[in-house]
Amino acid sequence: MSPAELHADSIVIDGLIIAKWNRELFEDMRKGGLTAANCTVSVWEGFQATVNNIAASQKLIRENSDLVMPVRTTADIRKAKEQGKTGILFGFQNAHAFEDQIGYVEVFKQLGVGIVQMCYNTQNLVGTGCYERDGGLSGFGREIVAEMNRVGVMCDLSHVGSKTSEEVILESKKPVCYSHCLPSGLKEHPRNKSDEELKFIADHGGFVGVTMFAPFLAKGIDSTIDDYAEAIEYTMNIVGEDAIGIGTDFTQGHGQDFFEYLTHDKGYARRLTNFGKIINPLGIRTVGEFPNLTETLLKRGHSERVVRKIMGENWVNVLKDVWGE
Amino acid sequence: MSPAELHADSIVIDGLIIAKWNRELFEDMRKGGLTAANCTVSVWEGFQATVNNIAASQKLIRENSDLVMPVRTTADIRKAKEQGKTGILFGFQNAHAFEDQIGYVEVFKQLGVGIVQMCYNTQNLVGTGCYERDGGLSGFGREIVAEMNRVGVMCDLSHVGSKTSEEVILESKKPVCYSHCLPSGLKEHPRNKSDEELKFIADHGGFVGVTMFAPFLAKGIDSTIDDYAEAIEYTMNIVGEDAIGIGTDFTQGHGQDFFEYLTHDKGYARRLTNFGKIINPLGIRTVGEFPNLTETLLKRGHSERVVRKIMGENWVNVLKDVWGE
Repeated sequence: MSPAELHADSIVIDGLIIAKWNRELFEDMRKGGLTAANCTVSVWEGFQATVNNIAASQKLIRENSDLVMPVRTTADIRKAKEQGKTGILFGFQNAHAFEDQIGYVEVFKQLGVGIVQMCYNTQNLVGTGCYERDGGLSGFGREIVAEMNRVGVMCDLSHVGSKTSEEVILESKKPVCYSHCLPSGLKEHPRNKSDEELKFIADHGGFVGVTMFAPFLAKGIDSTIDDYAEAIEYTMNIVGEDAIGIGTDFTQGHGQDFFEYLTHDKGYARRLTNFGKIINPLGIRTVGEFPNLTETLLKRGHSERVVRKIMGENWVNVLKDVWGE
Repeated sequence: MSPAELHADSIVIDGLIIAKWNRELFEDMRKGGLTAANCTVSVWEGFQATVNNIAASQKLIRENSDLVMPVRTTADIRKAKEQGKTGILFGFQNAHAFEDQIGYVEVFKQLGVGIVQMCYNTQNLVGTGCYERDGGLSGFGREIVAEMNRVGVMCDLSHVGSKTSEEVILESKKPVCYSHCLPSGLKEHPRNKSDEELKFIADHGGFVGVTMFAPFLAKGIDSTIDDYAEAIEYTMNIVGEDAIGIGTDFTQGHGQDFFEYLTHDKGYARRLTNFGKIINPLGIRTVGEFPNLTETLLKRGHSERVVRKIMGENWVNVLKDVWGE
């Protein structure tokens, strides 16, 4: 099979996209051969604003049903593949939208939310993010984890602090993930995960999606798709070939205002970080360039079997385990 | 002056009442000779529910303006004394009602909220309460303290964890308080404060109101008003005669449902504690019995000057310092 044929035949999952949702992006997802993606619908928003985001996204999916379809189960992912569409899975980057209501976990599951990051950069009712001192998982957080396990919502720990992450990994009865992270073995950064952290999540049945967000890569905005592949290989070497996948963190279509929103606590309060210029690695600057990743991994000597796993099959397996369908 | 005359002549402040707000209670406040009280209008409620509580309380105060009046400044407290009414100061037992909006601090100040406890028993966006592991004051919490300092809302730490309390004491540029606490030197309890903690707040210009809530007293429901006076003396011995006051925690008029609400995280989630039977110390079972406290303190040998300070003058001084008026 040629690289292009393999890519076209593979299940391709992006474990984290936070792009501007519009038809142009959906067209690029099709160009990139994306089977499904975890699409962020909540960051700093509370309950009602998040429901509003979901309602708007559902309308957008409906209006572009020639390109995309909603995903709630792994059977939906396979259906998207058969129909040549991209499956849209709703995800949160912050459990803040649950507010103080454990019952909202199931409410959001019923609205199509299948993966939720426990904290985004700072402290919430559940635990603490990776940009401030982390006191660990709260008592309420333990109840939220149990409810996410019960209704089938995956716990994501990418932006979560080290202590809260460790305690969620130990608390959860289902596999949890870093949906989009990089190893600090290649670059020290508050958002990157140490070898010990990567090993710990894998040893406990968890999953790691590797991102290519330039500020967290050693070469920053001068990185290429090979640097991204190197980070994937570094991570796979620790977590193994069954627990690894892709989580790009594509922010395509957003302007500076959106990055200001992301990098301030609560979306407006104190500044937490400053990304500077964001340029994705050469060769995978846009969602439409996804086939280059399959080609690069093959070129670097990985077998078709392993490339298929990295590109999406592993994600499907772990999601099936968490969702139960 | 007889004890009754001294009581009638004194400014009498209760630093914490969480009773059922109704005319019957206001009548009992007058019977007890209460000049003003910090009345809880938010525990687990979010922003809008708290505004609703305030609106309902404002109506109730208006309808009972022969007995009570709103208090926003220490001049209002003196006015209440002159007019023979009880001043109602709105307070929160949880910063949860600020939600994620720093701007809500000033909004609530404008609605008459002059004192806010940073956390109630568990973790919120600001810090952590005294019934779970405490990771300290969050970055957002530091911004909230600064805003409370700026607009003149007193930080209360009674139900706050030890680490968060210490950090608020260090962070605040205005005096902070334990509005209603007991010394763990007399009984070990998660809600009681150690000698070191009492000394630490006093050494940093803070204030301590002493409660008589039976579950935190050594003799529990068999306590008398002398046991309460002993706890006041124990505390005063550590913090000094200028930093001490009263904060009863009267829950008068509430039934078991309300205690269930208080003792579960978020008002409904996991149980945090179980108070058992609640009976206030003999001699001060109701707000109307407040004059007995003045009499008891005199009987135990305290001077009129010191009794006036304990009963309310100290509270007025520290509130003036925080409010600036």
